[in-house]
Amino acid sequence: MPVENPENDHPGHSLDQLNQALSSGMFVHVRNMLQKMAASDIALILESSPPDARQVLWQLIDQEHIGDILDELSEELKDPLIRGMSPERVAKATASMDTDDLAYVLRSLPDAVYKQVLQSMTEQNRQRVEQALSYPDETAGSLMNTDTVTLRPDVNIDVVLRYLRQRGNLPDTTDTLYVVDKKDKVLGGVRLADLLTCAPNTTIRNIMDPDIESIPVSMSDSEVAKKFERNDWVSAPVVDNDGKLLGRITIDDVVDVIREDAEHSMMGMAGMDDDEDTFGPVLKSTLRRSLWLSINLFAALLASSVSNMFEGTIEQFATIAVLMTIVPSMGGVAGNQTLALVIRGIALGHIGQSNARWLIGKELSIGFLNGLMWSILVFIAVFVWKDDIPLAGLIGGAMLINMTIAGLAGASIPLILKRLKIDPALAGGMVLATVTDIVGLFAFLGLATIYLMH
Amino acid sequence: MPVENPENDHPGHSLDQLNQALSSGMFVHVRNMLQKMAASDIALILESSPPDARQVLWQLIDQEHIGDILDELSEELKDPLIRGMSPERVAKATASMDTDDLAYVLRSLPDAVYKQVLQSMTEQNRQRVEQALSYPDETAGSLMNTDTVTLRPDVNIDVVLRYLRQRGNLPDTTDTLYVVDKKDKVLGGVRLADLLTCAPNTTIRNIMDPDIESIPVSMSDSEVAKKFERNDWVSAPVVDNDGKLLGRITIDDVVDVIREDAEHSMMGMAGMDDDEDTFGPVLKSTLRRSLWLSINLFAALLASSVSNMFEGTIEQFATIAVLMTIVPSMGGVAGNQTLALVIRGIALGHIGQSNARWLIGKELSIGFLNGLMWSILVFIAVFVWKDDIPLAGLIGGAMLINMTIAGLAGASIPLILKRLKIDPALAGGMVLATVTDIVGLFAFLGLATIYLMH
Repeated sequence: MPVENPENDHPGHSLDQLNQALSSGMFVHVRNMLQKMAASDIALILESSPPDARQVLWQLIDQEHIGDILDELSEELKDPLIRGMSPERVAKATASMDTDDLAYVLRSLPDAVYKQVLQSMTEQNRQRVEQALSYPDETAGSLMNTDTVTLRPDVNIDVVLRYLRQRGNLPDTTDTLYVVDKKDKVLGGVRLADLLTCAPNTTIRNIMDPDIESIPVSMSDSEVAKKFERNDWVSAPVVDNDGKLLGRITIDDVVDVIREDAEHSMMGMAGMDDDEDTFGPVLKSTLRRSLWLSINLFAALLASSVSNMFEGTIEQFATIAVLMTIVPSMGGVAGNQTLALVIRGIALGHIGQSNARWLIGKELSIGFLNGLMWSILVFIAVFVWKDDIPLAGLIGGAMLINMTIAGLAGASIPLILKRLKIDPALAGGMVLATVTDIVGLFAFLGLATIYLMH
Repeated sequence: MPVENPENDHPGHSLDQLNQALSSGMFVHVRNMLQKMAASDIALILESSPPDARQVLWQLIDQEHIGDILDELSEELKDPLIRGMSPERVAKATASMDTDDLAYVLRSLPDAVYKQVLQSMTEQNRQRVEQALSYPDETAGSLMNTDTVTLRPDVNIDVVLRYLRQRGNLPDTTDTLYVVDKKDKVLGGVRLADLLTCAPNTTIRNIMDPDIESIPVSMSDSEVAKKFERNDWVSAPVVDNDGKLLGRITIDDVVDVIREDAEHSMMGMAGMDDDEDTFGPVLKSTLRRSLWLSINLFAALLASSVSNMFEGTIEQFATIAVLMTIVPSMGGVAGNQTLALVIRGIALGHIGQSNARWLIGKELSIGFLNGLMWSILVFIAVFVWKDDIPLAGLIGGAMLINMTIAGLAGASIPLILKRLKIDPALAGGMVLATVTDIVGLFAFLGLATIYLMH
């Protein structure tokens, strides 16, 4: 249940305290509070603050924490904050970041700033960044870290332990070391747990898992996320076309992809961009939402032009107009239920060629059964209200037609859009609403016109 | 981008092959294919199959894999499959499961079967299960495994290594061993990486992280998920009220919570239960969707009763009826955009007392600005179409009123529902649609009536 007990909501609590201090102008106190907080909590607070408070907070944050915080911020927030910093400050703040996070931050910079930042970096960091940026966004390459620790198959655990103690540390979220041959080809993986629990004279080859699955560098990030989810991985090696180890992907970055993909469906169905900033500036948000509204205006005018064809019927019998919104509304809701189910099924990889037809048939049946049930109920409701059996029959009949079509459309529209390489989560809702509105009006007003003609 | 290249979609591909073999009745071939697959892939195939195929596949799966597969299945699927098994088979299949997964499976069994399953278990397993079931669903306790490995602070790494080598293995997804005192109170955590990289004579106390954050056993699972996401944890210790170690939570179970919570918002906004089975039986699905449709019918009748108040106006001027759906439609879409943003903000923990008012003000401003923009555009559109300036003015005015109210309602409804402890993702959409429909009709038909009276 996402409904939280507010008393459990610790970051929300410190957020309220901080905002109080901020609005009372107690900047020194705010700075002290921020110093005691984890980067992730500060990121949360920045994301939860209106733009003005954000700028003030940003000035009060310790220089040395800026890199960690940038790492945790959503893209929409990162851009304006980074643009406000000098290139030297950006270079300094990002020097200690992981390759994948660094690339993620720099990808969004304007070209001029980006070049200046690169120039302020050490040669080694510049190379790391340029390599990371060479992989396209939303692929395994863009999620990848290059900080892998590799072993040779023919050494024993004792040798590995001496090597690791000399090394002194391991990169964050390392659960597996990769075993590679002389050409960096992945031969297998050795879990840290096995290094700790096996006898020191065991050869790596004997404890490595030779069936470890490597991720091709060009795999889409959503596909990577599905693999992590299905296999309960903490990390996985990334390889090029020849099986050569390039880096590794860790679960913390995958969790972000899972969250983003799920949000994408939810926000997309409501006609919103998934990186829309909750506390962003008014004018920017207004403009971003316009595209969806303009498509809807077009759809609404289309529906009106259907009603317009039946103006004579409405003139003759105004009660038709009073009731004419019910049929499209029920069709819209029923179709949207089906749409949400199918969009989730596509996102989870459950729907393929072999079961799509079955699914459409199932949703058509549900639409028909729902249509039957609700046409009887709406018949009764309208009969009780208007005491007019033909009218109640007309609306019941139109309801049955529209809800059946809604089931069919709700299931087939996202599948057709997917085949056309159009994102069903973005376009599905609007296409469906247009279909259910037009079919609903046509059915009801059309039946009424035929009835009135007799 | 959740739109996948179908050629990358490996599980989908093997799904198609399997279904082909299944529908040709090549059961031996299917059994061989299933034997070569990972439990998670078989789970995916079961989830992607219609009920009949599911039952056949279930019979063809190796006995010994059933526990692992049950573990990966969604709740909606698990129930009917488990109910079809004999209690002895359930006991056998679940014997090797993790405590948290075992509890999750057993929680859904009917009482009689559950008792029989318990009786078929070994004493030790029975105790594990009864303990796990004592924690309420959707809390840290229900996500927890009891297979923690603990250390004392005063031993050195060499001693720990000897202990671990004797032990022979570590539970899955172990990245940290917990350091406890004699009363099992958590003193800190030692990462496996540190055990491998520090000198053998180092005392555990010197390398443990004493600030390791423990999770209270009663914390909600959504809150646990947020903590994992923010802190990039792989595992975390779970403690009782006295700080005594009870078990640990691992990222693989948290990923499921993150996925479920995100799906909950998306499916909830469309009026669907998040555990609805994509390939479930028709009749069950039809009935599950009825509640939402019945509320919508009530809302639609309410909107019609508003139009009904203005029947005289519609009779006088049928064009009003032709255009009257445009204003509610635009308000509905604009309000839904705001609603999705606020529901996501609540789920992410971004919205608290200190910023709620600012957010409502921002969305009200966006609603007003959008209203202004679209009222001008709809004025132009209707003027061009109907060549009637007063009519175009009426619809423009109503649009401005309704979109402003939609912004206000879209932001405040979920916040009010949250305060009333009603899930905004479930109820928000319907309440909002009712508001925007009624306000939209009232504004347009009301303004038209006032105009016609003059």
